[in-house]
Amino acid sequence: MLYQSTIPQFTKMLNNLSKILDKAAAHAELKKFDVEVLLNSRLAPDQFHLIKQVQIACDTAKLGVSRLTGREAPVHEDQEKTLAELKARIQDTIKYLESFSEDDFKESEERKITTPRWEGKWLTGWEFAQQHAIPNLYFHVATAYSILRNNGVDVGKKDYLGEMPYKK
Amino acid sequence: MLYQSTIPQFTKMLNNLSKILDKAAAHAELKKFDVEVLLNSRLAPDQFHLIKQVQIACDTAKLGVSRLTGREAPVHEDQEKTLAELKARIQDTIKYLESFSEDDFKESEERKITTPRWEGKWLTGWEFAQQHAIPNLYFHVATAYSILRNNGVDVGKKDYLGEMPYKK
Repeated sequence: MLYQSTIPQFTKMLNNLSKILDKAAAHAELKKFDVEVLLNSRLAPDQFHLIKQVQIACDTAKLGVSRLTGREAPVHEDQEKTLAELKARIQDTIKYLESFSEDDFKESEERKITTPRWEGKWLTGWEFAQQHAIPNLYFHVATAYSILRNNGVDVGKKDYLGEMPYKK
Repeated sequence: MLYQSTIPQFTKMLNNLSKILDKAAAHAELKKFDVEVLLNSRLAPDQFHLIKQVQIACDTAKLGVSRLTGREAPVHEDQEKTLAELKARIQDTIKYLESFSEDDFKESEERKITTPRWEGKWLTGWEFAQQHAIPNLYFHVATAYSILRNNGVDVGKKDYLGEMPYKK
């Protein structure tokens, strides 16, 4: 079940984030400034800039499913500086997400999850997914969106949510 | 199952939002300005202000579970203007969330969900929860947080995520 609560939606949100970055690039081109100004923007001086928000969104997805399944995650060195590099990072993360099957998650709900920061403390996989990985993924995508919104990029909630599989 | 993916976490996030509003009030008091300045702030001129972000976060939770279960939701008139009124709105929404049991959600995954804006189109309950209600709830809490972060309120991601049920 945690497969269904994580993989499809993490993939969708990272694709939405990639398209939001395209809108940032189009805005910068229209206004004739370098898109890297936006990539280095933030909402507060002690907040991570947009590049880091995208990197953390990717890592939240990648490390989230890695921890839930016990499968090793690819290493990313956080060297991205350009829009093209950030989009490649997103695509690389999506490729990793797409390598999972429901079977990989079969013991994930009860698995003991910890991270280097938690000093030996742990959560069950269910708690980790619901209270940590999922809210964090949305937080960093929404924060990346907000940084662009605050800088005049024409993004709206549909860009954040993406397409819905409506039926008639 | 959709009970477990919505009710506990929606409740937790609304409680976190209420505490974030307390931090906004404390900041305004310290800096000697009226907290209503913050309540009427936004990240872009064509974005909803903080009051509306809180109202929508509440309605996303309330209408989300109402639609998933077919249970009627209490009506709120969006008249809140003060911090106390916003916090009462949050508490009223939490009270409604707390009235649900797992049993209320037993047919929710397959239920056909529509909203007045969708002109007759629909999603399954599972799709609606995963792709619409849950991401929207996090979006509006994160946006409320970002508006305050952008205005110098001392909030951090722990305020957004809330306490974790760590075990040793």
